Amino acid sequence: MAFYVPNIYLSIKELAVARNIEYAKLNKGLGLTTMSLVDVHEDAASMAANAVLQLIKKNNLKPQEIGRIYVGSESATDGAKPIASYVVAMLADFYKTEFGENSFMHTDVVDMTFACIAGIDAMHTTLDWVNADISRIGIVVATDNAKYELESTGEYTQGAGAVATLIKHNPRLLSIANPVGISTISEHDFFKPVRKIKKTTLVNLLKGTGTSIPNLVSENEENIEIHKIFPVFDGQYSNKCYSNRMSEAYNHFVKLKEGTHKLEDWDKLIFHLPYAFHGKRAFADVFWETYKDDETLKAELLALDPDFFSHQNLKLLTKTQMYKDFVNQKVEKGQRASSYIGNLYTASIFMSFMSMVESELLEGKDISREKIGFCAYGSGSKSKVFEGVIQETWTEVVAKFEIFSSLEKREAIDFDTYENLHNEKLVTGVKAPKGFYLESISEDEVLYGVRKYAFAN
Amino acid sequence: MAFYVPNIYLSIKELAVARNIEYAKLNKGLGLTTMSLVDVHEDAASMAANAVLQLIKKNNLKPQEIGRIYVGSESATDGAKPIASYVVAMLADFYKTEFGENSFMHTDVVDMTFACIAGIDAMHTTLDWVNADISRIGIVVATDNAKYELESTGEYTQGAGAVATLIKHNPRLLSIANPVGISTISEHDFFKPVRKIKKTTLVNLLKGTGTSIPNLVSENEENIEIHKIFPVFDGQYSNKCYSNRMSEAYNHFVKLKEGTHKLEDWDKLIFHLPYAFHGKRAFADVFWETYKDDETLKAELLALDPDFFSHQNLKLLTKTQMYKDFVNQKVEKGQRASSYIGNLYTASIFMSFMSMVESELLEGKDISREKIGFCAYGSGSKSKVFEGVIQETWTEVVAKFEIFSSLEKREAIDFDTYENLHNEKLVTGVKAPKGFYLESISEDEVLYGVRKYAFAN
Repeated sequence: MAFYVPNIYLSIKELAVARNIEYAKLNKGLGLTTMSLVDVHEDAASMAANAVLQLIKKNNLKPQEIGRIYVGSESATDGAKPIASYVVAMLADFYKTEFGENSFMHTDVVDMTFACIAGIDAMHTTLDWVNADISRIGIVVATDNAKYELESTGEYTQGAGAVATLIKHNPRLLSIANPVGISTISEHDFFKPVRKIKKTTLVNLLKGTGTSIPNLVSENEENIEIHKIFPVFDGQYSNKCYSNRMSEAYNHFVKLKEGTHKLEDWDKLIFHLPYAFHGKRAFADVFWETYKDDETLKAELLALDPDFFSHQNLKLLTKTQMYKDFVNQKVEKGQRASSYIGNLYTASIFMSFMSMVESELLEGKDISREKIGFCAYGSGSKSKVFEGVIQETWTEVVAKFEIFSSLEKREAIDFDTYENLHNEKLVTGVKAPKGFYLESISEDEVLYGVRKYAFAN
Repeated sequence: MAFYVPNIYLSIKELAVARNIEYAKLNKGLGLTTMSLVDVHEDAASMAANAVLQLIKKNNLKPQEIGRIYVGSESATDGAKPIASYVVAMLADFYKTEFGENSFMHTDVVDMTFACIAGIDAMHTTLDWVNADISRIGIVVATDNAKYELESTGEYTQGAGAVATLIKHNPRLLSIANPVGISTISEHDFFKPVRKIKKTTLVNLLKGTGTSIPNLVSENEENIEIHKIFPVFDGQYSNKCYSNRMSEAYNHFVKLKEGTHKLEDWDKLIFHLPYAFHGKRAFADVFWETYKDDETLKAELLALDPDFFSHQNLKLLTKTQMYKDFVNQKVEKGQRASSYIGNLYTASIFMSFMSMVESELLEGKDISREKIGFCAYGSGSKSKVFEGVIQETWTEVVAKFEIFSSLEKREAIDFDTYENLHNEKLVTGVKAPKGFYLESISEDEVLYGVRKYAFAN
């Protein structure tokens, strides 16, 4: 695995002050410390290419060996041309001297979309593909710019980055097994609709002003369609959808395991994390369903609130020592990177796993052969629950992650810079580009919208 | 397999007259006769749901048996929530009485994007998934609204519809085999960029006019991003990319077959068809590479043009009897449906296959055990070449297609209606909805953009 996060961040403390939000609510409550922000010259494609390049280098892969690169993202900048095609363009250009033109010509690439869960879908389809032939090597890259409207309730959960994962036989880090528990129910908890408005007003206003927007606002069409990277969302409702889908997918997983699974089997749990502490909050439902007859737990709950069994408010559950121990042993290390990066949408669950295993390594723990439970979620909405086993060679791989040391090298930006960056008022980057970056977007009539990427050492 | 095309169409003759284009150029030259058009209450999700519903009914499937529904499309109306989630919502609602709420809860769904080839990608990933377990049943649905700007060179190639395909062990119609020849090179031959414009002008103009566009044009942001269903494209260049990628993917396929493939092995060839006659034109390169040493072909070419070998213009190749026979025997029947529907983007190659086999059945041919070559293409750009074998039970399935008889039941619309529909000036549908349809898109502040679908008998 390899990751890329931008080199700049905003401190949550600064954001809390500016927005008049109690810092403790964000830090102690949600687990937020800093948020990664894409610089002017970055997007989902450049971040993905940077993560994949690192992965290729770490594993000494040749382009010709890589049978597929599948992208999971909800930050597409095009309705037809996939991010994945830009990724291979950048990589092919990088390897031109060493491997000749178009060295990724026989690599199958595509984008997958389902809010935050499409990276996991890309992974499962690539596992299926690899499974059929021992010589196959695939890469999955989850990449997103989790950008929310200024002053919205999503603002403090923002983040950006990409995680690339190598999928092959005889893995050194993690072996992923069937079955996959699934729950899918259509919801509008978080989505990014194309937004349509009547255009007559705009066109009439523009007439005679000399303002021309070639090819964008033709007079033929009645409506103009606005694209926004910002989601329409209902945070509380989305949390509910997350918990429900996860419980249903977990129950489905248990059923598919035909009595061979117990929650205790999982040494660690990895979640999709819209914010660092979300997984541990959302898992309370499953925990309760599993242990509601446990005498120790019942005694603890009654000690905390003698009326617990009349209301069964599971917020109380998370205050029990039993739940705290569960979180500390099995969940907490997976939250750490998220606290410093923010939401990564599709890449979040991958980063949570990286955070878990690097933290274990840094603390000198041996997690070889440990069983990991994964709980993925995508708004809209779907959850997948599955498990994997840490391989004996895990430290070889994880020693090269360097998540926390890399994060320390990022630069803080001040609040004004943050707002200007967010509002796209900056023309040049806060920092000089490093690695793959977006050089330009053509405004030429014929090549309108062509994105050109480059590489900086 | 099952398909859905809208109930209305425009005659290409009418379009040719209105646009002052010679009809023969479109009809004899490109193979265009009529084009399907989405009505006011239709979109990629409703079309996909209608195709899947028919597929389920034809195969007497229960929702619980369907392990996945994967969508290939470049007509998404949302950047995060997949079309696939709307499809299962419609289906679950339809089957509520019979199978209870959320009967597709354990169905894995996602959208895949790579211009016109993502339906084939969805199919290949689903074949991989089904391959691993004999009990698995998956559905792939390709759905698109191929809409181009009025008066653009793409206008006469428009079309709309969806094709759903059942993927399982022991298929009755077609068995698809490995390997898959692949060629991927990033190009900007056809794409749909998010189009960004400075917003100051618009916002200033709107000030004081009383025009309010809540949540759409906030004053924070410097730019406004426009979404267009219309592509930016260069037709000639895209044709070139199509031919090149297909040749490369074909050569890759030949290489992977390790000397066991000859072009003669393919009894039929199926192409992605941006317009009906495109496949037969684009295949000239491969044909020439295969048969350039054939004495009969050389003699024919020299008879047509004694200078052929100095310029090698392959347009001449398509005028030889040898090529014409090849097209008539192996390609022509796959074009027929496209002539009446127009471009279907992702669904086009699936429809071409349906057109081929239904035409063979209608002509009383026995194509059992015939080998079919598939040449898929997606702009941006990628080609996949692979083969399948017609199963002995093929007529059971194909007898229920009823493509050509269904197309005859559609209603023609006049040119004014076409233009008004295209410009979104119609409020109610040209025809009353039938099957799943888009009932409304919410403009409520909290639920902004929520799409609500319904079913009409």
